[in-house]
Amino acid sequence: MTAIKELRDHFAEIMRLNYIQALLSWDQEVNMMEYKSLEGRSKQVSLIEKLLHQRVTDERVGTLIKKAEKLELNEIEKAMLREITREYNLATKLPEELVTEIAETSILAAREWREARKKSNFSIFQELLEKTVELQKEKAEKLGTHPDLYSTLIDLYEPGATYNWIANIFDPIKPKLIDFIKKLNSSPNKPHDSLLKKSYDENKQFELSREIIKKLNFDFGYGRQDKVTHPFTTSLASFDVRITTRTTEPFPDCITSTIHEFGHAIYEMGIKKELHDTILCNGTSMGIHESQSRMWENIVGRSKEFWIYWYPTFQKYFPENLKDYPLEEFHRAINIVQPSFIRVNADEVTYGLHIILRFEIEKDLIEGKIQVDELPEIWNTKFEELLGIVPPNDAQGVLQDVHWSMGSIGYFPTYFLGNLYAAQIYNSALKAKPNLPEDYKKGEFSNLLSYLRENIHQHGAVYRANDLIKRVTGEDLNPDYFLKYIETKFKPIYRL
Amino acid sequence: MTAIKELRDHFAEIMRLNYIQALLSWDQEVNMMEYKSLEGRSKQVSLIEKLLHQRVTDERVGTLIKKAEKLELNEIEKAMLREITREYNLATKLPEELVTEIAETSILAAREWREARKKSNFSIFQELLEKTVELQKEKAEKLGTHPDLYSTLIDLYEPGATYNWIANIFDPIKPKLIDFIKKLNSSPNKPHDSLLKKSYDENKQFELSREIIKKLNFDFGYGRQDKVTHPFTTSLASFDVRITTRTTEPFPDCITSTIHEFGHAIYEMGIKKELHDTILCNGTSMGIHESQSRMWENIVGRSKEFWIYWYPTFQKYFPENLKDYPLEEFHRAINIVQPSFIRVNADEVTYGLHIILRFEIEKDLIEGKIQVDELPEIWNTKFEELLGIVPPNDAQGVLQDVHWSMGSIGYFPTYFLGNLYAAQIYNSALKAKPNLPEDYKKGEFSNLLSYLRENIHQHGAVYRANDLIKRVTGEDLNPDYFLKYIETKFKPIYRL
Repeated sequence: MTAIKELRDHFAEIMRLNYIQALLSWDQEVNMMEYKSLEGRSKQVSLIEKLLHQRVTDERVGTLIKKAEKLELNEIEKAMLREITREYNLATKLPEELVTEIAETSILAAREWREARKKSNFSIFQELLEKTVELQKEKAEKLGTHPDLYSTLIDLYEPGATYNWIANIFDPIKPKLIDFIKKLNSSPNKPHDSLLKKSYDENKQFELSREIIKKLNFDFGYGRQDKVTHPFTTSLASFDVRITTRTTEPFPDCITSTIHEFGHAIYEMGIKKELHDTILCNGTSMGIHESQSRMWENIVGRSKEFWIYWYPTFQKYFPENLKDYPLEEFHRAINIVQPSFIRVNADEVTYGLHIILRFEIEKDLIEGKIQVDELPEIWNTKFEELLGIVPPNDAQGVLQDVHWSMGSIGYFPTYFLGNLYAAQIYNSALKAKPNLPEDYKKGEFSNLLSYLRENIHQHGAVYRANDLIKRVTGEDLNPDYFLKYIETKFKPIYRL
Repeated sequence: MTAIKELRDHFAEIMRLNYIQALLSWDQEVNMMEYKSLEGRSKQVSLIEKLLHQRVTDERVGTLIKKAEKLELNEIEKAMLREITREYNLATKLPEELVTEIAETSILAAREWREARKKSNFSIFQELLEKTVELQKEKAEKLGTHPDLYSTLIDLYEPGATYNWIANIFDPIKPKLIDFIKKLNSSPNKPHDSLLKKSYDENKQFELSREIIKKLNFDFGYGRQDKVTHPFTTSLASFDVRITTRTTEPFPDCITSTIHEFGHAIYEMGIKKELHDTILCNGTSMGIHESQSRMWENIVGRSKEFWIYWYPTFQKYFPENLKDYPLEEFHRAINIVQPSFIRVNADEVTYGLHIILRFEIEKDLIEGKIQVDELPEIWNTKFEELLGIVPPNDAQGVLQDVHWSMGSIGYFPTYFLGNLYAAQIYNSALKAKPNLPEDYKKGEFSNLLSYLRENIHQHGAVYRANDLIKRVTGEDLNPDYFLKYIETKFKPIYRL
């Protein structure tokens, strides 16, 4: 057997252990919320963690990688070797004590962060965040993927991306977004959202969200939808992708966040059979993954055409709220653009500024230009610069996100990259299939899906994000598509 | 570290893998019923199977067992060594080809059995059943736990039990049961079950079953209840025991079968902390396990006192069926004794005869006194001798149970042993706490539970069944308690 085939087989077992790990975690989130003790489960998770680590760092892997590098490989094998090498480096370049310290710190930090957010008291979290930042810097130093530390961290989530590359994209957008938001909000004819504040039965919302993803071609023969507090999507096998839905947030969050998770799931479900059980059976980057979820959630799921099809059903489900409310106004209401404090509730236009804020802060933190204890003040100052409002407290400011407590520094930029990728990919889809919006009016979504399957999904992690976007759209990531998308969409909504 | 402590640690990891395996299976039964493909899951199951086998057959285990045998061990360590040796022998005495052949045959046999039962055509299943019987004989020969093959198979499920020991218990009961059933059915005043044939809302039944097990002290902080087609109980960790409920069978099956599974679960939940993560953190035998489920289901859950407390609630839930129906008649209806074809639906009194039938047939099959092709005829002849009726077809006769297709020959007797153990243990509980039935009238079930926890549950698999029953009741298994229990219970119900 050739070295690459041996590696492939070796990693097939690793993939299976990963899926088992994913089940342990899915089950914990979905089924153990009322449990008093997670002791047994956490021992099981540690055991699989240990088995995974043993297998990835197996000295055979190092030897086989060297052998495989000398082979003539086809496109898929090359990608496989690239990803296997990446995993091997991540697992072997970090000293065991560092890995343990990061894991232990993140457990403590998660607790302190939760407490700090609850009490809106940053000082509770400060010390452990300082330690977390130091540990992430040390990690980046050991990995040394890029010359600067922050790029190395970003690369963990968006392989190949660097700080400079992202900054070159984000910097010119920033003033344009700020301007555009001001322009929209100067409109004399803004949408109203009072009807979204009414009460919508949770079970009916769940039922509708299920009906919608069915129509979007989510196949319940290969996946599930369950209720949770914090929605997520996870793959438990190539043919077992599960999404989760919350019904507790204001309407229509249940619907839009379910469509969002659907977008993640349908990506994983569409990976071609040839890649199943290999290390390439994954989305290729967090940014590309987010492009799929955001495209379905926002570009499709908040479009007028989508609601031309669905609104009558919603009116039947919620006659007391919607019967006499025109589609036009409903569509405007769910597309309100307004500076707000919480990232996860932000609209499509302001969202990018929430990310740019974090991106700039993370960079300065990692470079030591700002200190952890200065964060609350810097957050609020920058927030006002970008969004024109000041968070009333740290819970709604610097403490709102879980990411830093988990040590996930460098993750945030991928969210906004997702929006940018989405607009550019969708532009290509529209060029290839100009009738897509007409489809939605008829409840027909398979033409968009087949475009995405053909061009994005089937390839799994074969192509890196930048190669993929070039293959699909013929050019590098270009934020103009996003800027044009929001302008074309929101000006009419704001009657400008 | 001493050899026994090393073994303990080695088997802690094995327990964790067992729990992970249990989650894979629980999730498949509960969450994947609509799935089109179980390919990914079955690969995960095989992987854990392989990891388990490697660990149990690790040569270190053999060496450590020999070392541990020379140590002075306390009671728990002795039991641990006994169970570890048992596992090791089971895993090492059987040649790998035999294990593989048994596994492969059982997959094929399960399919053919299902088909045969659907079409009520035994010949479809015959060939694979012949092979299954031969493989089980070969397995028993290799294991050689007892001089006769059938005892060796029985020992897999009821450690320490033999054919002769069971026959000595079952033989004298047989004619007594036959007589008693005739006597009951000669009563001029038999109960009626027409009200059980009415329609009972499935969701309400599920809700009530949940309320009942809560009251029985099932702690949802350490377990779950989910809906399935075939109820079962499984432990996913010491503090994670899950039961399942079906709502599809005629009333009150949902209630009684949920109480049955509760009985299994509460046994596992009561094992003392000292035994957690060890090989002793299990029920000690199938028979003792069944004694716990049957005691709660039948002795408690079908008692008059239990229903004095619960019937008013049921009347409120199902006024259209029960409002004007007296408790007395309801209690009689759910305790009808009547020869019937299907074991799993049999009442407490006829149940034993269903088991004795299978026990006698299995013995003759394994000894080659009867051939597989004769089974349908022998089944029907014996069935008439024991229960006075002849199955109208093989689907309701010899093909009804899944066990033989899985190679589980020797399992059936443990079900009836469970009933016998239950009556004897309950008799002791009553002697210690004569007020138990008065408790039930008040919805108070913790006194029985604490008796069982103290005397049975906490010990896990420390004591073999025969030692346990002697510790608890002061004597060996004695079927008179069961005979007396059914006489005292059913004569008044039948107004005799």
